[in-house]
Amino acid sequence: MNILFIGDIIGRTGRRAVENRLHTLVDAWNVDLVVANGENAAAGFGLTVNIAAELYDLGIDVLTSGNHIWDKREIYDYLDCESRLLRPGNYPPGLPGRGSGVYATAAGTKVGVLNLEGRVFMNNLECPFLAADREIEMLRQQTPIILVDFHAEATSEKAALGFYLDGRVSAVIGTHTHVQTADERVLAGGTAFISDAGLTGSRDAVIGMRKEGAIDKFLTQLPVRFEVAKKDPVLCGVLVEIDEATGKASRVHRILEEIG
Amino acid sequence: MNILFIGDIIGRTGRRAVENRLHTLVDAWNVDLVVANGENAAAGFGLTVNIAAELYDLGIDVLTSGNHIWDKREIYDYLDCESRLLRPGNYPPGLPGRGSGVYATAAGTKVGVLNLEGRVFMNNLECPFLAADREIEMLRQQTPIILVDFHAEATSEKAALGFYLDGRVSAVIGTHTHVQTADERVLAGGTAFISDAGLTGSRDAVIGMRKEGAIDKFLTQLPVRFEVAKKDPVLCGVLVEIDEATGKASRVHRILEEIG
Amino acid sequence: MNILFIGDIIGRTGRRAVENRLHTLVDAWNVDLVVANGENAAAGFGLTVNIAAELYDLGIDVLTSGNHIWDKREIYDYLDCESRLLRPGNYPPGLPGRGSGVYATAAGTKVGVLNLEGRVFMNNLECPFLAADREIEMLRQQTPIILVDFHAEATSEKAALGFYLDGRVSAVIGTHTHVQTADERVLAGGTAFISDAGLTGSRDAVIGMRKEGAIDKFLTQLPVRFEVAKKDPVLCGVLVEIDEATGKASRVHRILEEIG
Amino acid sequence: MNILFIGDIIGRTGRRAVENRLHTLVDAWNVDLVVANGENAAAGFGLTVNIAAELYDLGIDVLTSGNHIWDKREIYDYLDCESRLLRPGNYPPGLPGRGSGVYATAAGTKVGVLNLEGRVFMNNLECPFLAADREIEMLRQQTPIILVDFHAEATSEKAALGFYLDGRVSAVIGTHTHVQTADERVLAGGTAFISDAGLTGSRDAVIGMRKEGAIDKFLTQLPVRFEVAKKDPVLCGVLVEIDEATGKASRVHRILEEIG
Ligand SMILES: [Fe+2]
Ligand SMILES: [Fe+2]
Ligand SMILES: [Fe+2]
Ligand SMILES: [Fe+2]
Ligand SMILES: [Fe+2]
Ligand SMILES: [Fe+2]
Ligand SMILES: [Fe+2]
Ligand SMILES: [Fe+2]
Repeated sequence: MNILFIGDIIGRTGRRAVENRLHTLVDAWNVDLVVANGENAAAGFGLTVNIAAELYDLGIDVLTSGNHIWDKREIYDYLDCESRLLRPGNYPPGLPGRGSGVYATAAGTKVGVLNLEGRVFMNNLECPFLAADREIEMLRQQTPIILVDFHAEATSEKAALGFYLDGRVSAVIGTHTHVQTADERVLAGGTAFISDAGLTGSRDAVIGMRKEGAIDKFLTQLPVRFEVAKKDPVLCGVLVEIDEATGKASRVHRILEEIG
Repeated sequence: MNILFIGDIIGRTGRRAVENRLHTLVDAWNVDLVVANGENAAAGFGLTVNIAAELYDLGIDVLTSGNHIWDKREIYDYLDCESRLLRPGNYPPGLPGRGSGVYATAAGTKVGVLNLEGRVFMNNLECPFLAADREIEMLRQQTPIILVDFHAEATSEKAALGFYLDGRVSAVIGTHTHVQTADERVLAGGTAFISDAGLTGSRDAVIGMRKEGAIDKFLTQLPVRFEVAKKDPVLCGVLVEIDEATGKASRVHRILEEIG
Repeated sequence: MNILFIGDIIGRTGRRAVENRLHTLVDAWNVDLVVANGENAAAGFGLTVNIAAELYDLGIDVLTSGNHIWDKREIYDYLDCESRLLRPGNYPPGLPGRGSGVYATAAGTKVGVLNLEGRVFMNNLECPFLAADREIEMLRQQTPIILVDFHAEATSEKAALGFYLDGRVSAVIGTHTHVQTADERVLAGGTAFISDAGLTGSRDAVIGMRKEGAIDKFLTQLPVRFEVAKKDPVLCGVLVEIDEATGKASRVHRILEEIG
Repeated sequence: MNILFIGDIIGRTGRRAVENRLHTLVDAWNVDLVVANGENAAAGFGLTVNIAAELYDLGIDVLTSGNHIWDKREIYDYLDCESRLLRPGNYPPGLPGRGSGVYATAAGTKVGVLNLEGRVFMNNLECPFLAADREIEMLRQQTPIILVDFHAEATSEKAALGFYLDGRVSAVIGTHTHVQTADERVLAGGTAFISDAGLTGSRDAVIGMRKEGAIDKFLTQLPVRFEVAKKDPVLCGVLVEIDEATGKASRVHRILEEIG
């Protein structure tokens, strides 16, 4: 089976890129399930109920997220009631939402999806390694096919989690840096890995936001209002081919589609 | 003309990868100048005089570096006397060494090389944007062909500097994360850009070091002794094709060579 | 002569504490100049033009600030035209405002005030040590009486700057942590030092803000709206006695006034 | 009853200060139990078996610690077998040692001691607030008299934990910044609180280490070898008076003894 993972969707630019290209990709690659990181889908900061609905309508089956999911308060209740929306599972107990779920493809195959957040240069959360142990043990009772979105900054933490989970999950896919890495491969134990899936949004930009604001931020160190950039849209992601019986990845393919 | 940039060389594994593959690459791509980041060439931490000499003998013309260049004290004097070795130019005044130099190819073409370090999640240094302004103005009095090694952690800071310098230098090449990114392109003003050139060393590893130690570090949060990994060596880098008259890049090509 | 320095004034609670107690203190200690840090005077985040005017009316002669001075946009123009308002002098060139000034007491004595911000765990700024060298050289051409507000997080950086400037300025007074330290003393060279002057605002609070919000922040790691606390107001600061002829401090006295 | 807590003991200078003054303090204040933070007792970095034994011989009953306890490998086994030595209890499971213990005074009164580490600007650990909930519930089954050493950097995190535990423990005493704060008080629920107990070692120093090295570090940003300073030794700490029946603090008194 084939799972398509789409990297952080940045604002309207990213949503239009999904609209423009998702069906073509699904057809071309015989995609059975589409997972996408939506933490920046609402003007670059968080997600709203309407925008989540729009993304599901466009053909995304499961939305993962990360540190920005908490930017818009309106999503908190929605996190509790929409099982197709995940937030990192290693936030403190008692928060809205969940970090993992099991989803069925059209053909009825069960796929577990787990969302975690890194700690290096980021929030003070539960250890993602131990959280992974806990969540994967539960998910594996339902299916050996498990995809992990590890939303993290440091390449070292991402690689370490990939090796740590090698053989226990189908794929560990990094997000958050908004820059696709070229290190995709299937590890020795059968886990597909990439440090970052990249962004879905403007490439003529600094992590998807207007470059003028970003440069200004670095030059002045002052608070800056960031706006979603529009030019040169791309859709970045990863296609993972998985053996349904074993959950092992047989192939991982990087996707970088220039739109229009 | 063609410049080959080689990403952070990690210990003996990285040096053997250079030995194994550099000449082939230089021939295949008609390389006129070889620049490599050597901050991790000595067992992963810093550089020694002997290892620098070894790398020059292997065919590297200029060594850049980064935060780890200060790990081995013996290199401090050498930084002052070896003009082919650079350290980030935005460290405080009064330190050993220099951040830029102008080097001649065999054909006599002058190439400026500038080394800078980022500040996000890193050391407290002079602003790399302002340091770049200052250094580039000097270098451009000698040559329009300028290659920048921006040793930095955050993708935002790297992209911002790339756009900031677009049109003023031939290439902005990121280093430090030890993971090659897939965002190489020539920006609108003619500057080749990539967020990270990647590592030259073991890929069966966490940023080139044995993965067991790295996983242990994340699980325990204790001090851990890191050792250079050996398996699955790669040489990562970037080939930049530059118009000698204008200094504009006409092409940037990512290189990821699996060794043996 | 005697200079009174008042630690970070937090919102209305802090302003009322100043109103309640400043005149008493000025009389009791024969204060010649009142300097106060106003970066949190406007509801905990930044400063407005009206609130600055209010603080001057209450008897403060000079306002210093720190990282939060940039929170309210309306202050930017005011920074350029009000010479009695300082912001850290080691922000990048080209920003509104200034980092130092020379002010005359009622008796006509000139006092230099210098505002700097630390870099450890804070913004990426110019080195405060080198900025201090530069600014102090200028100020000393007008007066040997110089007071430094070093707005910084780490005790190590604060102590190091104190020793670095010992003998060159009358006082190095830390701010930013909102907790008064008990390490006030006159260093060997005649510079009064304290790591932090403390806050002027509610003490039944977490750094002056309602404790419920702060606890919630640590428990959830989510974005939280902080509000100024009201109970148990205090005025914290330092009284520095200085020899006018030499600029040396002869005494430093910690002030912690419980209001009402 | 009276508990004396001694702030971070820095190298030989700190140990000599304890030797010089501890017995006098114990007599003067009728101290029933002496707790001290020993994470820097071995030349500023960690603790050895011999130095721990030396400190017990000097009259310390219980040693707490912090991030530096892991600096010397030889202490790891000792952490497992010496119940009077604690390390922060919110490190990952499986590490040597323990974070809390119950100790009897000479009169037979049981005192619980809990050691925790903050996360802001520090290591990626379990939430200290949740760890406190867990540990305190256990300790309270044995005694209502509980002293917490919260080894943390940020004043906000320290204050928040103090309020969070107010009424459940006898004292929350901060350590780690090596600078004594002047905010000691008994909170509304009967918990004694101070943001930092301060250091026991040289005060003519930067956090207990030679000031020349520290200044050099800030000026150069290079790796620097820190050495314990010797001049102007002090013993800093806190005396907490506790009602044995209820575990409530009736008084907290800051101690800053200049030695010799
Ligand atoms: Fe994102
Ligand atoms: Fe993110
Ligand atoms: Fe490196
Ligand atoms: Fe580096
Ligand atoms: Fe403040
Ligand atoms: Fe501040
Ligand atoms: Fe310490
Ligand atoms: Fe510590």
